[in-house]
Amino acid sequence: MRLSRYFLPTLKETPREAEIVSHRLMLRAGLIRQQSAGIFSWLPIGKRVLDRISAVVREEQDRAGAVEILMPTIQSADLWRESGRYDAYGAEMLRIKDRHDRDMLFGPTNEEMVTDIFRSYVRSYKDLPLNLYHIQWKFRDEIRPRFGTMRSREFLMKDAYSFDLDEASARHAYNRMFVAYLRTFARLGLKSIPMQADTGPIGGNLSHEFIILAETGESEVFCHADYLDFDTPPADTNFEDVAGLQTIVDRWTSLYASTDEKHDEAAWAQVPADKQVAARGIEVGHIFYFGTKYSEPMRAVVTGPDGREHPVHMGSYGVGPSRVAAAAIEAGHDEAGIVWPDEIAPFDVALLSLKAGDSAVDAACEGLYRDLQAAGLTVLYDDTDDRPGAKFAAADLIGLPWQVIVGPKSLAEGKVELKRRRTGERELLAIADVIPRLTGR
Amino acid sequence: MRLSRYFLPTLKETPREAEIVSHRLMLRAGLIRQQSAGIFSWLPIGKRVLDRISAVVREEQDRAGAVEILMPTIQSADLWRESGRYDAYGAEMLRIKDRHDRDMLFGPTNEEMVTDIFRSYVRSYKDLPLNLYHIQWKFRDEIRPRFGTMRSREFLMKDAYSFDLDEASARHAYNRMFVAYLRTFARLGLKSIPMQADTGPIGGNLSHEFIILAETGESEVFCHADYLDFDTPPADTNFEDVAGLQTIVDRWTSLYASTDEKHDEAAWAQVPADKQVAARGIEVGHIFYFGTKYSEPMRAVVTGPDGREHPVHMGSYGVGPSRVAAAAIEAGHDEAGIVWPDEIAPFDVALLSLKAGDSAVDAACEGLYRDLQAAGLTVLYDDTDDRPGAKFAAADLIGLPWQVIVGPKSLAEGKVELKRRRTGERELLAIADVIPRLTGR
Repeated sequence: MRLSRYFLPTLKETPREAEIVSHRLMLRAGLIRQQSAGIFSWLPIGKRVLDRISAVVREEQDRAGAVEILMPTIQSADLWRESGRYDAYGAEMLRIKDRHDRDMLFGPTNEEMVTDIFRSYVRSYKDLPLNLYHIQWKFRDEIRPRFGTMRSREFLMKDAYSFDLDEASARHAYNRMFVAYLRTFARLGLKSIPMQADTGPIGGNLSHEFIILAETGESEVFCHADYLDFDTPPADTNFEDVAGLQTIVDRWTSLYASTDEKHDEAAWAQVPADKQVAARGIEVGHIFYFGTKYSEPMRAVVTGPDGREHPVHMGSYGVGPSRVAAAAIEAGHDEAGIVWPDEIAPFDVALLSLKAGDSAVDAACEGLYRDLQAAGLTVLYDDTDDRPGAKFAAADLIGLPWQVIVGPKSLAEGKVELKRRRTGERELLAIADVIPRLTGR
Repeated sequence: MRLSRYFLPTLKETPREAEIVSHRLMLRAGLIRQQSAGIFSWLPIGKRVLDRISAVVREEQDRAGAVEILMPTIQSADLWRESGRYDAYGAEMLRIKDRHDRDMLFGPTNEEMVTDIFRSYVRSYKDLPLNLYHIQWKFRDEIRPRFGTMRSREFLMKDAYSFDLDEASARHAYNRMFVAYLRTFARLGLKSIPMQADTGPIGGNLSHEFIILAETGESEVFCHADYLDFDTPPADTNFEDVAGLQTIVDRWTSLYASTDEKHDEAAWAQVPADKQVAARGIEVGHIFYFGTKYSEPMRAVVTGPDGREHPVHMGSYGVGPSRVAAAAIEAGHDEAGIVWPDEIAPFDVALLSLKAGDSAVDAACEGLYRDLQAAGLTVLYDDTDDRPGAKFAAADLIGLPWQVIVGPKSLAEGKVELKRRRTGERELLAIADVIPRLTGR
């Protein structure tokens, strides 16, 4: 993408309303714009980050056997009356009347609707297990939305829902998502730790929050230090292997790890003092097993091998890509701006022309722009006539993993400069060496 | 995807509520489920179709120089008060009060919000031209939603908005989208004809609807028969070439073509009788130039080369992927079910095992499943133990372009059957010849 034809409105001033660093940087780097309290537009590079996060989430859901659908944002209140949550949910639910005065709502979550889909089609245990997920905008009318997209009212969520014949199979469904989440966050460049958690309005008695540690985290968390060195389950993990998945989950739950609400001082005291990590954490995922809480009142039943009807055992599993974008910045930034993990950066490479209009510089840039893209890299080519200083600052602010800097002086020797954003390391190298250096090929 | 692990709930009965063929087939083939009047869930193969349509729309928007963002679904009423449309829009607008009793709405379109984004950042004519688009769910509270996703209340729309210094540049922006739409619909397998159209609540005086002809079309349209044989502008069309684009648009508007509302009997009488096509049409896209209708009241101005402030000239450009999915079925189906255009089919190939559990058939299917995917094709592998007749019927119903049929009898001779859904042609061929036959490699 040529910057001269793009829309990247960066801000010089730090916006006053932003309380945390991710919110400040998302505004300054032109990722988002606030439209109303807790409601944001995603500007071009923000949209790209959101898409990349969603793509990783999707791949890992698919790998774990979940199937993608897309439910609407607007739901009928009647479904929620069936489960009993219409009255229970409180003021966070955005309630709406349509032109025929019917009670509708903007979905804050989808347990009821997906249970309705399930009961409309599935009759037999032979069609289980089933896990349906979607990535859709939700709305929760927070009384005081803040922290940008970390706690917004309209937010993007991947929510998956599993359906099984009994508790044992449902436990395997839970474990699939547990392992999928470990992999998802690792790929997103985030070190997540599953912690015992409260279930809140979703219900049930088994639940883990996936927490990343960050100084600016919203809540206090407590965990054993060894978790920080655990390996992520590999891509070829067999999600059909019941015992194998249980072993992974057992290991990842063998040591103490808890959110503030579930914190148990007695158990905590058993953790050796030099292994106690009490820190701030950011919730990036939350998984629940809640059995028949929705299937019983909503009559989502299947015929079992015994010929009788059984309400299905369900779980739900949420990750918010719009929140993860902010969390990734909380975990990855420095004085100069954002430092994106490679997998979710809006572009792989910033190509900076230090003298647009100079024919040698233009030719070198055009060649690199073409060849980098041909090599499969995404490139933001700063072809504007801004000052070099402004270009360096903007490139650092938006935090693309690599900068390729083309100036007339080095170019006279056939060289360009390569800068790794994360470390600040710079090297001069021949143009022909740039792509092998970046792709390892 | 293995069907045994997928969710493809096809219906044997024709749903009573569906009045048109696309609605019937989308329900029967398990693409959608109605959740409330005019509000649908997209089931797995429906979601895949929607994604493929959106991907083509996105590619052609990008090619034409538009830049993708994502605006939220919920908007503040205040923006619409600035433009004067809050009161003017009528009952189709879904109006909402949040917990603080603020007037909000579910966006039916985004002229106001995108104008607000523009005025927040852009100051100079040097940052023009600019075209921002998003693909987002909209809501229009139709009094009688019907025809499934063809006229639903919650619907997916790609809406692009162009900003230019003056009318001449805005005309070029309009032409870019005009040509992008010709390319988009052609790639989607649809023969579209741009027709003069009314502007309705969007406003302005220059507007074209892109119409496809279909017996079940919602309205009457009139056009010169020669349009049906016009070539689509090629992928390497230069969208920066002002005169070149104008030539394409001039050609595509040189002959008579009009919707019912703009129909001119006198002009129509000039079309030779054997060239008059009066038919039913389905609107699949709509483009508008409306000058300063929003930029003036909302103060979206830039400094021009003359140093003075100018309200920008704008246009907007809409395509509804959720509507296009239905339109593609109206234009492509037969007695047995859907016949998808190759580019938007949910999978490329249906791989049908006629005897799951037979070791030779299983081995052949597994090999084909692996190799077809390795060749870059998407495959729905029917590995269930349903009867062959049921499998054939389901495969025809969901309408994937190719069926690869593996039965024990042909397999004994090393052969499988290949069926082209569109023509019904079948051929027996050696397993090793399947992939070369499908990929042309």
